[in-house]
Amino acid sequence: MRGSQTSGWILLLPWVVACAAQEPCPVAPTPHSPLSSAVPSAEVAPAPPVLPTPAPAPVLPSWRDGAAKQRIVDFVKAVKDETSTSYVPPEERIAVFDNDGTLWSEQPLYFQFVFAIERVAELLGQKPAPAWANRPWAVALARDGKKALAKLDEKAIFEIAATSELAQTSQDFDAIVDKWLDLARHPRFERPYDELVFQPMVELLGYLQDSGFSVYIVTGGSVRFVRAFAEEVYGVPPERVIGSYFDTQYEYKAGKGRVLSLPKPGFIDDGAGKPVAIDRVIGQVPIFAAGNSDGDREMLEYVTSQGRPSLGLLVHHDDAEREWAYDRASKIGKLDKALDQAASSGWLVVSMKDDFATVHSAAKPVVVPGP
Amino acid sequence: MRGSQTSGWILLLPWVVACAAQEPCPVAPTPHSPLSSAVPSAEVAPAPPVLPTPAPAPVLPSWRDGAAKQRIVDFVKAVKDETSTSYVPPEERIAVFDNDGTLWSEQPLYFQFVFAIERVAELLGQKPAPAWANRPWAVALARDGKKALAKLDEKAIFEIAATSELAQTSQDFDAIVDKWLDLARHPRFERPYDELVFQPMVELLGYLQDSGFSVYIVTGGSVRFVRAFAEEVYGVPPERVIGSYFDTQYEYKAGKGRVLSLPKPGFIDDGAGKPVAIDRVIGQVPIFAAGNSDGDREMLEYVTSQGRPSLGLLVHHDDAEREWAYDRASKIGKLDKALDQAASSGWLVVSMKDDFATVHSAAKPVVVPGP
Repeated sequence: MRGSQTSGWILLLPWVVACAAQEPCPVAPTPHSPLSSAVPSAEVAPAPPVLPTPAPAPVLPSWRDGAAKQRIVDFVKAVKDETSTSYVPPEERIAVFDNDGTLWSEQPLYFQFVFAIERVAELLGQKPAPAWANRPWAVALARDGKKALAKLDEKAIFEIAATSELAQTSQDFDAIVDKWLDLARHPRFERPYDELVFQPMVELLGYLQDSGFSVYIVTGGSVRFVRAFAEEVYGVPPERVIGSYFDTQYEYKAGKGRVLSLPKPGFIDDGAGKPVAIDRVIGQVPIFAAGNSDGDREMLEYVTSQGRPSLGLLVHHDDAEREWAYDRASKIGKLDKALDQAASSGWLVVSMKDDFATVHSAAKPVVVPGP
Repeated sequence: MRGSQTSGWILLLPWVVACAAQEPCPVAPTPHSPLSSAVPSAEVAPAPPVLPTPAPAPVLPSWRDGAAKQRIVDFVKAVKDETSTSYVPPEERIAVFDNDGTLWSEQPLYFQFVFAIERVAELLGQKPAPAWANRPWAVALARDGKKALAKLDEKAIFEIAATSELAQTSQDFDAIVDKWLDLARHPRFERPYDELVFQPMVELLGYLQDSGFSVYIVTGGSVRFVRAFAEEVYGVPPERVIGSYFDTQYEYKAGKGRVLSLPKPGFIDDGAGKPVAIDRVIGQVPIFAAGNSDGDREMLEYVTSQGRPSLGLLVHHDDAEREWAYDRASKIGKLDKALDQAASSGWLVVSMKDDFATVHSAAKPVVVPGP
């Protein structure tokens, strides 16, 4: 995957074209008044107060009782049980989770791409104009706003994504993403994007951690973007986030060393890239993997084909009322080949409609400790 | 660094040429009787029994009392002291250590290259002959043995290194390295290579871990090679080892998913590559860095230039009697520019001769807990 002249972002092209023709389009940069859609709406109801969690906390309280929840609990109990043939010592209890569509929503457009468009629009509004302001896509965005999105080609989409991180350190970029998360609101739910995490999955992260698992996020999104909120939202620290990246370079200037992002492809952590990245960063094969799309297929296959206790889990978006219903035909988070393989490979397909008692928490989700 | 057609191994070329003319050369593959030099010698004295560690263990017992040890202890105490202006919370207490020449010896040749030569010699002796047996360097090694080393060019050295890992998973390669470490003996010390770790540095790893630090190895060597022994020898688990790598690819065959090493350059974790890899994998800037050569200069600079409490440490090889004495003129582990920068940047230069009470432990070193 590395060294390709394009990136995973190009998969968005059909969506971007379609988006420009519909209302509400979540991406609506307004040059010279950036982030105008990001002002908190008065219609957003205040979150109810967080009640103290009773002790002992129930296991996976936002999961409905049923076969899916039972299978997860049985798996975790077995790998913890030293008398079981399925016992796995703690140092080998590694769990990997996709992010977009698995831990938080991804419709109507990957949240990071919304960020990238709004970020470049903000920069275009600054004086003096950035050096890249004369790029064709930047000129079109400044002139036509939202209408320009329909004309973006693959190269432009890559450049917009790269420009949103350009010449930043991880630390500076983290602050930029934090600010965006504070201000931006999702067009359908009118809530901050990082409140649109799946409460049952956040509980699952915590349950596994409490059961001796080392939990990693393995995202097709930019590793720097996901690190900006993973610890606060998921309880997953920066070094446990693996993801795509642009190339970077080290620079020492004005008495300080910095690692700065370049407008060059680095690594695309999607599809067969996920096992490659897991091997490279973790060096062991996990025993638990959760995903929701064909981009997670190889990761689940890798984890569940080693001839030892393991669990592969697919989140199936089948709840149009509380979230969205999509799979084989979706441009975002397409779930087709992996859904076919779930049966033959014994993966657990979780129905958001049937298995999730809650989808998005009313309040900011918290990691609920297991028993 | 990525995408280069050559690798860090090419830096070895002058050494390899010189090595072929000297006795004893540590690399002496004998076709059809591979690893002949790796049979344990009867002259190797058995290691004395490991005595139980008295409690409470002294801090850094294999360091001589003096300014170097005191500076390390003062730094650790300060970052742990919540009342100190130098306090650093545990989640930001990250330490990075180079491996070759910092945690174990590297003379007269990087131990991994000795492994690589002996590994390809072993494979050349197998029937049927490997597919790469007609490569010019393989033909020369099979025909001329040790004498062939003098004629290896940059491309050959890269190919030998790549071939030693070729088409292996991390798990299979781990077993190969373990076997080599069991059998191979260092030509000067006549001991297994993984007994040639520096006991004071192993104690320092443990002292930092016991002081709430997350300790990483950041090696110019292959990440898969160092992971094979890092946990047993240093107490550093696989996911805490960052290093160079060849490119890899995911393959699903005969019902099993594997990540296999390719004969293609991946990433060279040396020089400016070290800060890049630290940012990519850890996502935070460490506060402690230890190295011994110019290949660690940027890493120490990065860690110590952030305007907050930090410590950069250089191991200076100045003990020809117990180990080796080399710095500015050495082909292996050259320490020149970094030694100049140590003074201006306030890095601690540790004298092996004066500051190490012990260099190599008599027994297999163990991680000594701090107070």
